[in-house]
Amino acid sequence: MSVPLPRRLAAEAVGTALLMATVAGSGVMAERLAGGQQAVALLANALATGAGLFAWIVTFGPLSGAHFNPVVTWLGPGRHEMAPAERAGYVLMQVLGALAGILLVHLMYGLPALQVSTTVRTGPGAWLSELVATFALLSVLHGARRAGHGLALTAGAVALVIVAGYWATASTSFANPAVTLARAWTDTYTGIRPTDVLPFVMAQAAGAWLARLFWREGTR
Amino acid sequence: MSVPLPRRLAAEAVGTALLMATVAGSGVMAERLAGGQQAVALLANALATGAGLFAWIVTFGPLSGAHFNPVVTWLGPGRHEMAPAERAGYVLMQVLGALAGILLVHLMYGLPALQVSTTVRTGPGAWLSELVATFALLSVLHGARRAGHGLALTAGAVALVIVAGYWATASTSFANPAVTLARAWTDTYTGIRPTDVLPFVMAQAAGAWLARLFWREGTR
Amino acid sequence: MSVPLPRRLAAEAVGTALLMATVAGSGVMAERLAGGQQAVALLANALATGAGLFAWIVTFGPLSGAHFNPVVTWLGPGRHEMAPAERAGYVLMQVLGALAGILLVHLMYGLPALQVSTTVRTGPGAWLSELVATFALLSVLHGARRAGHGLALTAGAVALVIVAGYWATASTSFANPAVTLARAWTDTYTGIRPTDVLPFVMAQAAGAWLARLFWREGTR
Amino acid sequence: MSVPLPRRLAAEAVGTALLMATVAGSGVMAERLAGGQQAVALLANALATGAGLFAWIVTFGPLSGAHFNPVVTWLGPGRHEMAPAERAGYVLMQVLGALAGILLVHLMYGLPALQVSTTVRTGPGAWLSELVATFALLSVLHGARRAGHGLALTAGAVALVIVAGYWATASTSFANPAVTLARAWTDTYTGIRPTDVLPFVMAQAAGAWLARLFWREGTR
Repeated sequence: MSVPLPRRLAAEAVGTALLMATVAGSGVMAERLAGGQQAVALLANALATGAGLFAWIVTFGPLSGAHFNPVVTWLGPGRHEMAPAERAGYVLMQVLGALAGILLVHLMYGLPALQVSTTVRTGPGAWLSELVATFALLSVLHGARRAGHGLALTAGAVALVIVAGYWATASTSFANPAVTLARAWTDTYTGIRPTDVLPFVMAQAAGAWLARLFWREGTR
Repeated sequence: MSVPLPRRLAAEAVGTALLMATVAGSGVMAERLAGGQQAVALLANALATGAGLFAWIVTFGPLSGAHFNPVVTWLGPGRHEMAPAERAGYVLMQVLGALAGILLVHLMYGLPALQVSTTVRTGPGAWLSELVATFALLSVLHGARRAGHGLALTAGAVALVIVAGYWATASTSFANPAVTLARAWTDTYTGIRPTDVLPFVMAQAAGAWLARLFWREGTR
Repeated sequence: MSVPLPRRLAAEAVGTALLMATVAGSGVMAERLAGGQQAVALLANALATGAGLFAWIVTFGPLSGAHFNPVVTWLGPGRHEMAPAERAGYVLMQVLGALAGILLVHLMYGLPALQVSTTVRTGPGAWLSELVATFALLSVLHGARRAGHGLALTAGAVALVIVAGYWATASTSFANPAVTLARAWTDTYTGIRPTDVLPFVMAQAAGAWLARLFWREGTR
Repeated sequence: MSVPLPRRLAAEAVGTALLMATVAGSGVMAERLAGGQQAVALLANALATGAGLFAWIVTFGPLSGAHFNPVVTWLGPGRHEMAPAERAGYVLMQVLGALAGILLVHLMYGLPALQVSTTVRTGPGAWLSELVATFALLSVLHGARRAGHGLALTAGAVALVIVAGYWATASTSFANPAVTLARAWTDTYTGIRPTDVLPFVMAQAAGAWLARLFWREGTR
């Protein structure tokens, strides 16, 4: 790639921060305005997340590939094109970016900067959901790579698979370890209790690995 | 087509399972969160279904054509390119995939794995609705084939004709025999009583046949 | 154009019928499910209308141009390419198609086939709204023609200008004389009292004429 | 550019008026219909705004570039291609257009033509929100310019970054000084108290300036 690494790392950090701010910020706004109407809140949260995902992928994709997600960097279709050190740098930036996005939301909404989530998200159903959601997300990426889909079509499919996943899965489709980790640090709508993070991340890794199995035959 | 048949069959099964899981899973989530607000529940169900349809067609289309639907395989614009045995294989995979999608939803949401729907969906209005909905869906496919529309445009039009159909028709546009059959096995939001399945499937076949009549003149 | 006239007329009739059924059918469903939540009902009605518009334009555009609207046929950017008799045929098919769409909705929902609307839609605010909405719709078409936008982009912009208009204008943007006329024959959510039809149509014609004035300089 | 300046100025004025009418008009309709359901009102307002943005950018972009926004004209990626006097003309037209859009909404809805907003929108959280929202919007434009994205993709990303911003930020993402100024003159859903306008505009300018800093390295 012709974009220098520091610039690509900056794009991953800023892009993930904006994505995380969209997810968490829209959750705060949705909860405030919905007045207990849970379905309306999730509609708003899903709509904002999908809209933001499309915009950030289109904007930062030409710089860094717009991974924003450690399982995409480590287990996605483009993993062979990056050295392990480069991939580690991407993941670090994604985690720092996601944490910055959470902080930004707290500052925008005048909430305590540092929070720890108390939202319980656990159990076999939630773990299976994360596995399925991440399998689905990575399948979209593998399929797009295999078919040579362009940036716009890939961004659209990624945004919409997440919109669908928010509603189809019991866990609302986190499908992203960096975002999952950062969500532990907000006790708002989109939070997750710190002790529930690791199983989610493991299920996400398993889903990404399954997608790699399914698509490997098709890609080489 | 250059994709080997077993791979295409796998794509039909996995794609239909993900589609079915999106339809039924978003129905469960919508009903849980909507608290009796039926219009909000259907908005969420329609949004998730359309989003998922687009993503799965874009992802699996280059492998199998992304039919996910027996009337598309048997009566759609590409039927002459597949041998009857191949088409039968597609339909079998679609039915098995849809059943797997229902099972997956029950597991994700911690519901009994095996259920039978008790939701009554019958009467001339519902049957006419299914005929119209399937005529509309197949017309989009025939029109896209005739005009040479690409995958992205076709996927967008298919997703949106279903979103429109969820609201425009009295039956919420099943328009898919495999999905209709599988929905009999879930007593959740999107279910249909087993005895109501056959008339729905017959109406869908009639709608697909009407679309073939309308578009035949234009296609050859 | 290479498509024979009878086929184009059939496309205008069927396309307008499907569009009208989407508009009116989603209105019936929205009103039934919304339980008095008017904003949710209009959200559903707007979403379904935009989704249907996109699908039908993409599907029937390559056949007939997908006008579905007398002011598009008579005052739109392509008017010089059709003889007056041809345009009259288009308009007749649009009106008949819209009426058929209303009838179809009544049959799907088990309502009396023949109805007359009692919904009052009148006053300077509503007429100004129709003028603005039709100016906006025709501007999208003139701009697309001038810039050489393709079918997908044009269909997307048309669908979204109507979605925006449903919410932005006080009249919910009918912007279509054939659809306005047909809506007089349904006493459901999207109806309009027969005596209110003519001023709406006149305002729509004025808006289309203004758009022609604004864009003429740019087109020749 | 081959489009003469008066025509481009007219496009900026008319396009900004239609955009402003979409934003403010959908706010009036949403507040009237939502019956206190604030989340539903913002959903409708966001949906209509995004839909309108896409349609107007696609329609007027080939004429004037479809800035509709002083920070886009003055600090956006294309600023070097316009003389300062030209840019000043654009900004003047944007302000006049936005004011005309507000007036149009009042006339369509039968409200007093001249109003002054009483809605308080102030505080560090709101200002940070405007900075972030404008940084995001300008980043989409800089990224699109750098990558050579076409009109459709750029319009889609712009529309969706605003949809996301309506929900993600505490200020609902005005991100546009002309629109902010005009909103002071309506005491409806989307209004802002005149004394709160200046800090909003300053935060927007700061956000646009930050985006220029971030993207400068990539653009030259």
